[in-house]
Amino acid sequence: MELYFLGTNAGLPTTQRNVTSVALRMLEERRCSWLFDCGEATQHQILHSPLKLGKLEKIFITHMHGDHVFGLPGLLSSRASHEGSPPLTVYGPQGLRDFLEATLRATQSRIDFGLEIVEHSGGLVFEDDQIKVEAEALEHRIESYGYRVTEKDRPGSLNMELLQEWGVRPGPEYGKLKNGECITVNGRTIEPAQVLGPPKRGRIVTILGDTRPTPGIHPLASGADLLVHEATFTDEFADLAYKYYHSTAVQAAEAARQAGVGELILTHFSSRYKDLEQLQPLLEEAQAVFPHTRLAIEHQSYPIRAAKGVE
Amino acid sequence: MELYFLGTNAGLPTTQRNVTSVALRMLEERRCSWLFDCGEATQHQILHSPLKLGKLEKIFITHMHGDHVFGLPGLLSSRASHEGSPPLTVYGPQGLRDFLEATLRATQSRIDFGLEIVEHSGGLVFEDDQIKVEAEALEHRIESYGYRVTEKDRPGSLNMELLQEWGVRPGPEYGKLKNGECITVNGRTIEPAQVLGPPKRGRIVTILGDTRPTPGIHPLASGADLLVHEATFTDEFADLAYKYYHSTAVQAAEAARQAGVGELILTHFSSRYKDLEQLQPLLEEAQAVFPHTRLAIEHQSYPIRAAKGVE
Ligand SMILES: [Zn+2]
Ligand SMILES: [Zn+2]
Repeated sequence: MELYFLGTNAGLPTTQRNVTSVALRMLEERRCSWLFDCGEATQHQILHSPLKLGKLEKIFITHMHGDHVFGLPGLLSSRASHEGSPPLTVYGPQGLRDFLEATLRATQSRIDFGLEIVEHSGGLVFEDDQIKVEAEALEHRIESYGYRVTEKDRPGSLNMELLQEWGVRPGPEYGKLKNGECITVNGRTIEPAQVLGPPKRGRIVTILGDTRPTPGIHPLASGADLLVHEATFTDEFADLAYKYYHSTAVQAAEAARQAGVGELILTHFSSRYKDLEQLQPLLEEAQAVFPHTRLAIEHQSYPIRAAKGVE
Repeated sequence: MELYFLGTNAGLPTTQRNVTSVALRMLEERRCSWLFDCGEATQHQILHSPLKLGKLEKIFITHMHGDHVFGLPGLLSSRASHEGSPPLTVYGPQGLRDFLEATLRATQSRIDFGLEIVEHSGGLVFEDDQIKVEAEALEHRIESYGYRVTEKDRPGSLNMELLQEWGVRPGPEYGKLKNGECITVNGRTIEPAQVLGPPKRGRIVTILGDTRPTPGIHPLASGADLLVHEATFTDEFADLAYKYYHSTAVQAAEAARQAGVGELILTHFSSRYKDLEQLQPLLEEAQAVFPHTRLAIEHQSYPIRAAKGVE
């Protein structure tokens, strides 16, 4: 499980950074990736990344501002042009369906891979036996959501040494033990508790849309292993941040500290910060409040590690 | 007057080429540029070009397929975020208005520079004292147009030697003579015909949308100094070209020869041709029919020269 940033700029693209999108890669866990937001030219960024359009399973939209959705119609059209692409679901606020249906209809784009559009207004957005996604409203000029992705606990590791001693070879028996079933080998009945370590705690990653500081962040980020928070401005421009319904790096760090997250990644930077050097003040201001902070850099991977508990 | 290609690929972007867009730069003549088509990430291409969003005066859309229009909402939004951008008009077929209004409404994008949307169904699309633009229907899966841009004739050059001999210095008198007025200097009345060379013939550039070979191309391209024609496939795939309502390089060259144009530029290449080397067969096949053929290459300028007559 890792995050891979495709766009980290606010409002419009620059020569250095693209508009917002980040991928949650779950190749080991789920053999697919998810996308959070899809600004214009996200598909172009994907061309220069290890991601594949056909492996995208879900796209979550935080809010309907253009810099977060204008890449959707093109990405979906290109994905449809690859034969045999599996179905894909796009989740987002009210207005998402109208936007997609209008753009695809006006351009007579044929999306034949099974596109599902799910509009939500917060709460439980998706759940299966592996993962669940919850959304909560933030505070922006328009309806904007944060997503909390919770991986469910996985079985612990098998004690391979003991199993080999007892003559159990890798194969279906291992799966049964992991699923909590007893097995009998060479006349010996083995219970899972004898050979299974403690369950691995599922990881939690929280990805926010554009927002001012707001109490809604706390339940989304509480105890998360990793929090992605917008940080449009340095502290100097706190007034601007408030006026345009955005956050400063310090405000992001305060939210991270209060929520007790493992790690904070700042993204969605104003164009006034031209390059990585000019972004350093955001990092420093945030780290003074919450040391485990990093800047989102495009085309870089950020592994999601269980911050506490037994791995 | 020159063309500057921003995107030359058909259908979807690749690592080598972007989807369709070409700029007509008229800095000397008109202090602005026009765009023909606006595929996704055209604004990104512009960031890496000498073009400026604020200097775009008009955008002409050939047809409503996504690879020709998905860049419009983002480009207009970014242009609106620069304060003081002058008005801009977008011309295109039926459906353009719905597409733009739906996308801008869904994303609550504020375009406050005076955006005009003009839907047309061919004929005279625009005219002022300097230039006129005519459109004609082509043959594609959906309504698709070619544009013929005709620069009006400009006054000839003044005979500077003779004027200096007669004691007329550069200034308002030169303008009067160019406008066809007589002047009187040092008691001598000078008529324009005495000092003005023959008028400079305006140039004609024709830019086509996606199309099969069709008689509609002839009136658009007849006698043009430069013709931009799609060439999606090599001759080997003429069947595919027909099936998908596209042209081969040879068909483009035949249209150029029949219309007696000065120069032909091929664009809108299938993704199957990965790079410039793989595009060489298209160039060679076309040049065998019409020698004055070039390939459109992104971020390259193509000056538009009056092919015949007195310059
Ligand atoms: Zn934003
Ligand atoms: Zn096309």
